[in-house]
Amino acid sequence: MYFQETVGLEGHLIDSDILKRAFDSIVANKGEFEVEDFRIGRTNQEPSRIRISVKAGSQEDLDAILALLQELGASASLKDCSFEPAPKDSLLPDNFYSTTNYDTSIRVKGAWHDVQNLRMDSVIVWDGSKAACRKLAMVKKNDSVVVGHDGIRVKPLERSRDFSVFDFMSNSITAEANKEILIRQIAKEIKSIKSRGGKIAVVAGPAVIHSSADASLKRMIENGFVDALLTGNAFAVHDMEKSLFGTSLGVCQASGSVVQGGHRNHLRAINAINKCGSIENAVKTGVLKSGVMHACVKNNVKFVLAGSIRDDGPLADVITDSIEAQKKYIDALEGIELVIMAASTLHSIATGNLLKASVKTICVDINEAVPIKLSNRGSKQAIGIVTDVAFFFRALADALLYAKRV
Amino acid sequence: MYFQETVGLEGHLIDSDILKRAFDSIVANKGEFEVEDFRIGRTNQEPSRIRISVKAGSQEDLDAILALLQELGASASLKDCSFEPAPKDSLLPDNFYSTTNYDTSIRVKGAWHDVQNLRMDSVIVWDGSKAACRKLAMVKKNDSVVVGHDGIRVKPLERSRDFSVFDFMSNSITAEANKEILIRQIAKEIKSIKSRGGKIAVVAGPAVIHSSADASLKRMIENGFVDALLTGNAFAVHDMEKSLFGTSLGVCQASGSVVQGGHRNHLRAINAINKCGSIENAVKTGVLKSGVMHACVKNNVKFVLAGSIRDDGPLADVITDSIEAQKKYIDALEGIELVIMAASTLHSIATGNLLKASVKTICVDINEAVPIKLSNRGSKQAIGIVTDVAFFFRALADALLYAKRV
Amino acid sequence: MYFQETVGLEGHLIDSDILKRAFDSIVANKGEFEVEDFRIGRTNQEPSRIRISVKAGSQEDLDAILALLQELGASASLKDCSFEPAPKDSLLPDNFYSTTNYDTSIRVKGAWHDVQNLRMDSVIVWDGSKAACRKLAMVKKNDSVVVGHDGIRVKPLERSRDFSVFDFMSNSITAEANKEILIRQIAKEIKSIKSRGGKIAVVAGPAVIHSSADASLKRMIENGFVDALLTGNAFAVHDMEKSLFGTSLGVCQASGSVVQGGHRNHLRAINAINKCGSIENAVKTGVLKSGVMHACVKNNVKFVLAGSIRDDGPLADVITDSIEAQKKYIDALEGIELVIMAASTLHSIATGNLLKASVKTICVDINEAVPIKLSNRGSKQAIGIVTDVAFFFRALADALLYAKRV
Amino acid sequence: MYFQETVGLEGHLIDSDILKRAFDSIVANKGEFEVEDFRIGRTNQEPSRIRISVKAGSQEDLDAILALLQELGASASLKDCSFEPAPKDSLLPDNFYSTTNYDTSIRVKGAWHDVQNLRMDSVIVWDGSKAACRKLAMVKKNDSVVVGHDGIRVKPLERSRDFSVFDFMSNSITAEANKEILIRQIAKEIKSIKSRGGKIAVVAGPAVIHSSADASLKRMIENGFVDALLTGNAFAVHDMEKSLFGTSLGVCQASGSVVQGGHRNHLRAINAINKCGSIENAVKTGVLKSGVMHACVKNNVKFVLAGSIRDDGPLADVITDSIEAQKKYIDALEGIELVIMAASTLHSIATGNLLKASVKTICVDINEAVPIKLSNRGSKQAIGIVTDVAFFFRALADALLYAKRV
Repeated sequence: MYFQETVGLEGHLIDSDILKRAFDSIVANKGEFEVEDFRIGRTNQEPSRIRISVKAGSQEDLDAILALLQELGASASLKDCSFEPAPKDSLLPDNFYSTTNYDTSIRVKGAWHDVQNLRMDSVIVWDGSKAACRKLAMVKKNDSVVVGHDGIRVKPLERSRDFSVFDFMSNSITAEANKEILIRQIAKEIKSIKSRGGKIAVVAGPAVIHSSADASLKRMIENGFVDALLTGNAFAVHDMEKSLFGTSLGVCQASGSVVQGGHRNHLRAINAINKCGSIENAVKTGVLKSGVMHACVKNNVKFVLAGSIRDDGPLADVITDSIEAQKKYIDALEGIELVIMAASTLHSIATGNLLKASVKTICVDINEAVPIKLSNRGSKQAIGIVTDVAFFFRALADALLYAKRV
Repeated sequence: MYFQETVGLEGHLIDSDILKRAFDSIVANKGEFEVEDFRIGRTNQEPSRIRISVKAGSQEDLDAILALLQELGASASLKDCSFEPAPKDSLLPDNFYSTTNYDTSIRVKGAWHDVQNLRMDSVIVWDGSKAACRKLAMVKKNDSVVVGHDGIRVKPLERSRDFSVFDFMSNSITAEANKEILIRQIAKEIKSIKSRGGKIAVVAGPAVIHSSADASLKRMIENGFVDALLTGNAFAVHDMEKSLFGTSLGVCQASGSVVQGGHRNHLRAINAINKCGSIENAVKTGVLKSGVMHACVKNNVKFVLAGSIRDDGPLADVITDSIEAQKKYIDALEGIELVIMAASTLHSIATGNLLKASVKTICVDINEAVPIKLSNRGSKQAIGIVTDVAFFFRALADALLYAKRV
Repeated sequence: MYFQETVGLEGHLIDSDILKRAFDSIVANKGEFEVEDFRIGRTNQEPSRIRISVKAGSQEDLDAILALLQELGASASLKDCSFEPAPKDSLLPDNFYSTTNYDTSIRVKGAWHDVQNLRMDSVIVWDGSKAACRKLAMVKKNDSVVVGHDGIRVKPLERSRDFSVFDFMSNSITAEANKEILIRQIAKEIKSIKSRGGKIAVVAGPAVIHSSADASLKRMIENGFVDALLTGNAFAVHDMEKSLFGTSLGVCQASGSVVQGGHRNHLRAINAINKCGSIENAVKTGVLKSGVMHACVKNNVKFVLAGSIRDDGPLADVITDSIEAQKKYIDALEGIELVIMAASTLHSIATGNLLKASVKTICVDINEAVPIKLSNRGSKQAIGIVTDVAFFFRALADALLYAKRV
Repeated sequence: MYFQETVGLEGHLIDSDILKRAFDSIVANKGEFEVEDFRIGRTNQEPSRIRISVKAGSQEDLDAILALLQELGASASLKDCSFEPAPKDSLLPDNFYSTTNYDTSIRVKGAWHDVQNLRMDSVIVWDGSKAACRKLAMVKKNDSVVVGHDGIRVKPLERSRDFSVFDFMSNSITAEANKEILIRQIAKEIKSIKSRGGKIAVVAGPAVIHSSADASLKRMIENGFVDALLTGNAFAVHDMEKSLFGTSLGVCQASGSVVQGGHRNHLRAINAINKCGSIENAVKTGVLKSGVMHACVKNNVKFVLAGSIRDDGPLADVITDSIEAQKKYIDALEGIELVIMAASTLHSIATGNLLKASVKTICVDINEAVPIKLSNRGSKQAIGIVTDVAFFFRALADALLYAKRV
């Protein structure tokens, strides 16, 4: 005895690996398939279409397969999606649907609605007219939460055939490539995004300051290439310690030697800024005269400083509650098309968790582990570069600003 | 013209590098010295004594040198220490003294008082009878904060001459050593601490769960070798996902294969526990029946879950405010003599920031970068082990529990 | 004006990525294609067939595309392949064909001949009746070397549909997985290879000895799970230093402490063995009584020690000439189906260079960089495991020998 | 009952850690000591003197302690050293003395002779008038080899008190420092060595070419900052592949994209150069017109290419025998004062093995593991820099050539 259903798929089925993943899903779940009809796109542009008959030994196995095929865009189910109310604030009905980071639609009374603010490992809430993505902590009592698998359609990211650097370098992480070429191609992509009014975010860790990458990042900010800066307490403190006292963690940034009593400068910087009330006030009152944070204030670049248990101080601008900080990150990432993540494991992974799969990401770290971790999250638009951030930002700023040298 | 002062030093001046660092400090700050008197300890036990005359070209240079010598324990200054009131909550007087992580005393009306709860990059507050260490965020308006350098004595960590594993392995980080031997010596140290009633803390990252080190950690908890567990949301969720659904990030922990719909289990676990109200309730009501968190509840091991911006959920037990989480970490570390930090950069560095230099630490990570970062913080009692946490915990639990096999 | 040709492809075109790579090759080289006919395999077992018409703007572009399609197995060219004589020993005709590591055949007088001893970056030599693969250094004057691209057929590795661990873990390198599960699955694969008479090689670096993985490797050898051991001078010396003097690089392997004068034991071990003339003689005369090298001699496991400029000594058994050592490695790898590469960059990459794509490889290292480097070489049968070799070998030996515990 | 002896030590006993290591050696070997007399240098320049009485429970323990103290320069023994003849080529008398990498003298008929060509893990051979250091493989039958511990004096490296970058950065390996400052200080050191006629060697791996560091290395060669280049086959082939065909491992170095058939260029480059007979001939005949190897020939920079089992080809210039290659490396390192080791584990460690402790080394790698390995070898003059070699060489060449920018 067996259970059977026929499903259809359409799109760039081969280029985008959809067909391969469909076959894998069927076989991995102990199913069998037969191809009833297949029309491959005859040219680069034309989409392909397939109709597959799927067989499995139990209704359960078949349902598991159909759920996976549906996530690949298969048009099997024509039911509406189901809702249940959240029993409490921050609590979900048992059978909640957990999102991926791919574009998703839900079917309500026969009509398909795109889910807004999509990100992974969240739930979908329907307010009677719109579907939106919510993190668990942001769900309110009685919100209509999508449950089960009916009436949900996920659109896998299709790989374009006009090879950008994000297509051919995606998920290849190597320390040995010619990174200058790669960085010039990233510069081209950034310019193209900015020229059509798109937005760029930078996520940066404190090593950006220690390693002297800050000068280049500042040039990028002053020339309009950065729309948002997402980081934490340490980055901002190191930057302002350097501006105020010329040291970074007590090491003189001109001579490289340890300054007597210099380790105190870290706390001194925090105290000096907090005395002004905020970074913005420190700039306005002339206390803070240079550096990356100063450039952000002067150039109206939105910055968010998320607190962590590792922090000294912290600065008055730091959002110490992690749920609140996530909300501010989400706001700042609204409309961002490309994110540069540099030398920060914590904030880079936090940001990766909040992005749709279609947002391009560049993860730069001297250590393979971070780009590997981020690329394991399934984005097709992620480039990992194993290099020194000082090198990366200098080469990137040069490529963005001296077109001729490129 | 020159400026001169004579200071005395006493202790294991050579073994503990104090004399070398004193000479370095003088020369590095453009001073000169003459040894007026030196009595070296004639045996292993006897302390050494030296009197040095220090010269410098300006009063400023001399003061800088004296401040450094004082931090090494030099008995130059016989003035009382000075205080200024904090102008506001979380704000310091300009000339505040910033602490190291070495034992420190202050002189008030001619008497020396030990500073309680010492940790680095903090300030000292005097309440009229006792001196205590405070993080900036915990300073209240009008607290009497120590300022300047007078009347402060810092006692560098002396290296004992009865070589423990912490003496001869300190700050050597290598992936190639025979780690089984090293782990057996650590086990001996842990047993010795526990046998005299001392306390042990474990800081652990989520890889402890993924990598199957959890079984061994659980055995250590059940046998009384762990007094506090400091971690974050992810560790607890992964552990409980494994207990509740048999998966970790959706990967079946029996077969290693990806479970259909398994990525949802992460959120499901959070929701299931939060439905109970807390981890403790989940244990009491029989919802949670196994795993590390279960073992903590059953064995009265204090655990603290610090929130971060990277978190899903979070669990109801997670402290989302980072200042609040620091306070709970500080409480949990009270009286701890040895900390095992395993596969967690964020929580390990957070904990390192909160420890006195005399607390022994073992940092285990598969990546050299983390032990290097922690050893750069100046503890003399830190061992870095580059290995797989699964291997580390299994070998450690075996060495602790099967004395015969050792 | 355009240039056009029609080609056919057959096989598991979708599962094995052949079709995707064909389309990529065409588009990347500025060509266009039209699908004339496509029959997808209707079941898991049935192969697929496609006929594509390829267009390009110049004959050159078209030729470039056809060469790439041919390497994917396309049946365009029906010409015989061409030869030219090698002008000298170790010198090639200009237009030589450079091999991949996939199964390759050449067409001579209308008949297809499989190329023997295939490995990448080599050339094909025809002796009048057989085609064989040769490294440049092994080419002799007047050898008939294959030139150009005609009459060469390359068979890409097809992914089987009966998912072994090598299919679903291939090229995923992560430090955070549950490695115990993975190692158990590898053990199953090894047992299955051995049970049908297949052969296993181990490539090992000196860290295998330092880290105490040697005891487990020895158990594997004694139980018949290793057919060849490929390594260098250092591994053998460390192993025998441990057997003879109980130290490894002068560190006592029982207590972990540095032995007085112990660094001399390294040279002493070399001298003691060389006095016997060879490792085999050292075993026969009773000088060497334990350890991995001893186990190899006792169990007739072929071992090859390749010299390097880094060596002390070296041992009399070491082949100091690198060309000669390559030849011995090639001989030892004859018929090997699976290679474990552990903690050795040099010898692992050397071995990787000599293997056909169909040989399964497992690369174990504590550092991501080595598995990444090896996986970049294009094998579909390569698993990278980031862990401690001591953990890996103990878990593997346990899984191989205690079936019940698995 | 106990055994006792009195020894004297002299020098910068505290700054150079000699005294601390002496005390450690005594205690670690179960001895006790009493200080009979100690005169500390009263100023920066004056040496210190100590006389210690050492006690131990057995003559064996006492001898072990005395041997260690002697290696620290203690003047206990006044016997001549002993010799035994080598029984065969490459074979040592059993009781041979194994060298350290510190300056060493031997006492023959009451006179002290410095050992020439010192390097570690070798033996000392006396030819009747001079003492020289030999690798085991270079010992000939009947050579007079130093045995036992009598009459050998080792001079530990003294740390100078005029802080160069090699003093304060030694053995600190961190990825987070401001490397631009550090590199400028290294440039200063290199200029100072060159200005007094000293010599510099570069050890480089293939990543120097891939990563585009080659342009900067070439500028350094053309401006006389490099006296010797020690590398292997791959570096030279990649460099010349780039010169001849514009690709590196088949990747176009202008566009970053994979060139059709490009992987063949690697072998093509080898074949093209070998056709000329040597790299020098390829330059002379105009076949090779640019790149690092071309610059070496044009600027008379000695280069040595050591073969390894990993090599393709190899080039005709490669020395395939590892003993022969060691000899050539030793010759090329004659008189070298500073070595830059960049992105090459194999050749860097090989070179490290051949250097006296007083030769300054800078080890640059993107991975902490290599600098850690090298710093574990005991040199006091070793700086480890964790960065991208492309960044390192560009910043270094800029600092060397544009004095103004520095």
